[in-house]
Amino acid sequence: MFNLGNFLSLSTFGESHGIAFGGIINNFPAGLDVDLDAVQHQLDRRKPGQSTIVTQRKESDTVKFLSGIFEGKTTGTPIGFIIENDNQKSKDYEHLSTAYRPSHADFTYDQKFGIRDYRGGGKSSARETVNWVVAGSLAKQLLPKTVEITAYVSSVGEIFCEKPYQDLDFSNIDSNDVRCPDSETAEKMISKIKEIKKEGNTIGGTITCVIKNLPVGIGEPVFGKLQAELAKAMLSINAAKGFEYGSGFFGARMTGKEHNDLFNEDFTTKTNLSGGIQGGISNGMDIYFRVAFKPVATILRPQESIDKDGNPLILEGKGRHDPCVLPRAVPIVESLASFVLADLFLVNRMRRI
Amino acid sequence: MFNLGNFLSLSTFGESHGIAFGGIINNFPAGLDVDLDAVQHQLDRRKPGQSTIVTQRKESDTVKFLSGIFEGKTTGTPIGFIIENDNQKSKDYEHLSTAYRPSHADFTYDQKFGIRDYRGGGKSSARETVNWVVAGSLAKQLLPKTVEITAYVSSVGEIFCEKPYQDLDFSNIDSNDVRCPDSETAEKMISKIKEIKKEGNTIGGTITCVIKNLPVGIGEPVFGKLQAELAKAMLSINAAKGFEYGSGFFGARMTGKEHNDLFNEDFTTKTNLSGGIQGGISNGMDIYFRVAFKPVATILRPQESIDKDGNPLILEGKGRHDPCVLPRAVPIVESLASFVLADLFLVNRMRRI
Amino acid sequence: MFNLGNFLSLSTFGESHGIAFGGIINNFPAGLDVDLDAVQHQLDRRKPGQSTIVTQRKESDTVKFLSGIFEGKTTGTPIGFIIENDNQKSKDYEHLSTAYRPSHADFTYDQKFGIRDYRGGGKSSARETVNWVVAGSLAKQLLPKTVEITAYVSSVGEIFCEKPYQDLDFSNIDSNDVRCPDSETAEKMISKIKEIKKEGNTIGGTITCVIKNLPVGIGEPVFGKLQAELAKAMLSINAAKGFEYGSGFFGARMTGKEHNDLFNEDFTTKTNLSGGIQGGISNGMDIYFRVAFKPVATILRPQESIDKDGNPLILEGKGRHDPCVLPRAVPIVESLASFVLADLFLVNRMRRI
Amino acid sequence: MFNLGNFLSLSTFGESHGIAFGGIINNFPAGLDVDLDAVQHQLDRRKPGQSTIVTQRKESDTVKFLSGIFEGKTTGTPIGFIIENDNQKSKDYEHLSTAYRPSHADFTYDQKFGIRDYRGGGKSSARETVNWVVAGSLAKQLLPKTVEITAYVSSVGEIFCEKPYQDLDFSNIDSNDVRCPDSETAEKMISKIKEIKKEGNTIGGTITCVIKNLPVGIGEPVFGKLQAELAKAMLSINAAKGFEYGSGFFGARMTGKEHNDLFNEDFTTKTNLSGGIQGGISNGMDIYFRVAFKPVATILRPQESIDKDGNPLILEGKGRHDPCVLPRAVPIVESLASFVLADLFLVNRMRRI
Repeated sequence: MFNLGNFLSLSTFGESHGIAFGGIINNFPAGLDVDLDAVQHQLDRRKPGQSTIVTQRKESDTVKFLSGIFEGKTTGTPIGFIIENDNQKSKDYEHLSTAYRPSHADFTYDQKFGIRDYRGGGKSSARETVNWVVAGSLAKQLLPKTVEITAYVSSVGEIFCEKPYQDLDFSNIDSNDVRCPDSETAEKMISKIKEIKKEGNTIGGTITCVIKNLPVGIGEPVFGKLQAELAKAMLSINAAKGFEYGSGFFGARMTGKEHNDLFNEDFTTKTNLSGGIQGGISNGMDIYFRVAFKPVATILRPQESIDKDGNPLILEGKGRHDPCVLPRAVPIVESLASFVLADLFLVNRMRRI
Repeated sequence: MFNLGNFLSLSTFGESHGIAFGGIINNFPAGLDVDLDAVQHQLDRRKPGQSTIVTQRKESDTVKFLSGIFEGKTTGTPIGFIIENDNQKSKDYEHLSTAYRPSHADFTYDQKFGIRDYRGGGKSSARETVNWVVAGSLAKQLLPKTVEITAYVSSVGEIFCEKPYQDLDFSNIDSNDVRCPDSETAEKMISKIKEIKKEGNTIGGTITCVIKNLPVGIGEPVFGKLQAELAKAMLSINAAKGFEYGSGFFGARMTGKEHNDLFNEDFTTKTNLSGGIQGGISNGMDIYFRVAFKPVATILRPQESIDKDGNPLILEGKGRHDPCVLPRAVPIVESLASFVLADLFLVNRMRRI
Repeated sequence: MFNLGNFLSLSTFGESHGIAFGGIINNFPAGLDVDLDAVQHQLDRRKPGQSTIVTQRKESDTVKFLSGIFEGKTTGTPIGFIIENDNQKSKDYEHLSTAYRPSHADFTYDQKFGIRDYRGGGKSSARETVNWVVAGSLAKQLLPKTVEITAYVSSVGEIFCEKPYQDLDFSNIDSNDVRCPDSETAEKMISKIKEIKKEGNTIGGTITCVIKNLPVGIGEPVFGKLQAELAKAMLSINAAKGFEYGSGFFGARMTGKEHNDLFNEDFTTKTNLSGGIQGGISNGMDIYFRVAFKPVATILRPQESIDKDGNPLILEGKGRHDPCVLPRAVPIVESLASFVLADLFLVNRMRRI
Repeated sequence: MFNLGNFLSLSTFGESHGIAFGGIINNFPAGLDVDLDAVQHQLDRRKPGQSTIVTQRKESDTVKFLSGIFEGKTTGTPIGFIIENDNQKSKDYEHLSTAYRPSHADFTYDQKFGIRDYRGGGKSSARETVNWVVAGSLAKQLLPKTVEITAYVSSVGEIFCEKPYQDLDFSNIDSNDVRCPDSETAEKMISKIKEIKKEGNTIGGTITCVIKNLPVGIGEPVFGKLQAELAKAMLSINAAKGFEYGSGFFGARMTGKEHNDLFNEDFTTKTNLSGGIQGGISNGMDIYFRVAFKPVATILRPQESIDKDGNPLILEGKGRHDPCVLPRAVPIVESLASFVLADLFLVNRMRRI
């Protein structure tokens, strides 16, 4: 209960300033030649300190696999892994042991559990996502090699990448620090983030993810709809505030005549406003969705707040924080999507006699 | 697997033109004095034929409880229920046995399962939601009586209810056929739907849902976040294309300084852009979210399509269909939200020693 | 949670004197030509009134499928079914509304739930097993046709079928009322049950189940071991007190040298004391296990007991009850074993890349 | 899926000669003052090398908690832990890389997964149980302090502890190497094991477990029956061949008149042949059950076997192995029982409004 996935299942642990993060992937099929470089590559894309527009916390983020892989192949038994925390500056957080930071989970954790590890947000830290990147980038390898899962930053604040995804060259995504494939827009985004950072402020944005070449038939008809599983995974990301796929919120303005995707004779459709999913099941067209991220709550400016007894105090943001979470969230979105797809892909093997 | 809920669990069955819909609710606590009228009331709000702007299919939609309730109280054992289909005009659908309707699940079901019940969409029919309304309106009764869960139509096509939810009088929601509490906007929406209906067309829109007085502490920290569970439930609705909560997609345009919810000394917050949830856990403020619905795919106009062999054909929409799914989706959204909350509310009882 | 099965999943409902029993089977693969006669045949073997040595309660036990089967084939969507209760003599039970019958669940239900449907034991009635027979005999059809799952009565009280299962002719099982394939032993068992019945008493016994031709590889290595799943299913039967497989409790007396199953060169083993399972996974040899059943608790003789306030009373057993549950439990054991095997068989499809 | 527990959930990993074993406990309630010594105490009771009648493999078996505990208290977030393997003598096993040992899982793993870690049995090693002891001895601390869960060795080969558990002094259990509380029987068991060990042979036996003072109401009515959950857990132990509770297999020989537990006026029963469970739910009386263990399959004598191509070979047992698994299985049985009870105990909190 409360794992990621249905059949393929990820259980995780770890707190921001604990000893390590880690997880266990259950029911991973045997016989996969694991590409560990691909896993580390995604970890590196999520890693702090990789550019000037992300947090400067230092973490090597090296994953160590403890089981389930033998002589380079998965054995079908549980895959255990850990990522040690190099950088446990707990001292930085002692002033927060009784303070409630605005728009953080300090108050809710205290209320729910009666106790919390206050160091760096404890369990509520987005560092948890390091586990998801490990699991998701392994799960990706279960899908047919032709499946492409690509996320990119499609807006930062009011700066939008106006081009539809079809007109973008995805090979450009990692060519700039913000991970927007349109270089002109990327430049504007980067300047904006730098400006915001200088002010000790933070900024939100959106990520678009595109899945190509997924086989037809992935997704379950009632409570395991592909879009529902994707939405759940995306809304598990700490800063995510919204999810839309295909025509999304814009589609809610349209009429049926405009919105219906007429078929071609090869079973592709002419418009794909549906976003590659019908009745919860992939139809072979591109799946595309967008995730909204709020601005990071930790700002490096004084803020009024209260402590656990309701006494007012002034918080002075310290530490090394992201002015904009978007560039580092790109591999997280890809990894979660990969895990969801791999899970439903495996399940689909059992849906016909 | 693939049920609704984690601990409190709903399993359902039924096809559009089969004998009956129904479900089983597992792990429902014992000792509840069931208010069956409240259940039937929500069913009536979802029922076809209740106004001129919804489908004229005739269904009594009467639920029959088969177990788990004894002398008016829940017994703690599984609650089985059925809703018989009165209106099985299978003949209406024979012409569709090999046709693939645009933006329906005909093609994907055939590809996934190699077989499908083509009558009225079979399992992919939105009639499945009748089960959710039964289960959700029962689950609602597990929550403290002070909890209010209210949904309303906040847009139809390009017509938006511009007032924030705080300025609306929710007691007006059912005073008009479209279920928008702002009577002026409601009128415009109704005219729009009538116009669209006359054209044999359909139209999309959005529903806003507001949850008041939920206790603090509901929701799980990692993979059972309250917003993730809500998103999953909402994206399970057949026509849903998007979900956002709190500041949502608009929040992605903001800076941290603007977006952070500063605390009052009583632990409420000044702004609630967070939408009542921090770190996946309710914080006692109002929870509010919005769901986007695409226009209904069945239009009563000729459309080009193909059959299962890829041969072109012209579809003539027949039967009794909704020009706009929004008014009937209001109780569905409320019911799903109720079920998600009741599930996490029960789970929360076990989270402290 | 608390369903039968892991991937293939059965949820059930129903009380002894309620309107109906029934269930939903989720994730049943599409495309099976359902043999409904085979289902009804197993129901008939479980049915009351089929011989003089079982209860004379009258129930037609006819199953009605409500969904998931279309034109004779499974569609891959949830299979809903009900079995109506013909015989709801609630009046018979009013004297029991506050009494606690010895070795029944009256006291524990009241303590757990604070309420119980006292009519015929309510949810604790073994009539629940009618659901399992439906689900299990359908699930059986998912396995390769060569798989044989056969249960028989191997002891009644002190009367044991001494022959090993290999020396028995299973085609004789249904040739007598007690379902023991050895006709001489069967006769003794039947006389014993008749004698016991005359005294208003009841008697226990054991059932042996043999599974032949199961493919190698079924069962999961850690917490889904084949024997563990079988044990759980069998101990779910109301009167079951024990489970052993292969050498079982007798094997606990042996040494490794005696107990080890040496291989033949074709990977079969010479002795099969292991009972067809190694490390939780089927090895292609026969699987055999034994289930112990206590005597039915309802006896037709006066018994001392107490009511819910602890006041002493004399219970006079009434109604129509089984003097020995064994003959009717044979199809139940077969059905549960079938369901467990079908579930793990499907899961096994996903265990290799 | 395929975790231990329903709500309280254990996921594990580790292979005999891998880097480490470990696990994640999900949904552990917050606020428990963890007694880590109690955990280590149970680990030490399971540890190899603790006496002359168990394996001499050297493992410190020290558990390291990586998360979920803060300043000595559980935080309600996932508890991650690892136990490093000190003693990875993989060289010992190279001769087994293609051999199939009799009554081991070598053949079934190869067939199921197409690959296996052959070092010390890989995942099929009973060293996995080290994880269960950690989780179970933590879970024990969730139960009321008055609950006592005590296992002991009740037979070794043909040597039985004849006294009923009520006549035994449980404080003697750890006073001898074999963990039988009757010192006379213990001596005989120890001599027997030494004799068997000298022969390079192994021997089976049984463990009896007694649970005292469990509150009434624990266990679920249909598929989560207390005895079914216990049976599943026990049959997950590698060498377990059988499970019986209360009157068990002997009860199958009795009549209802003999077997029924008559009530006292304080709701206790006079006989408790039921073994403390009615209808799947604890009734406040002692719960007692027995588990049968086959003799360890690895014997230190030459055995005929085959390799993966079916070629005959002679196996020479090497390494350090248990002549009798029973003494070390005592804490395993207690730990599994603890975990099952803690899980159902938590669940029970949600079963009334």
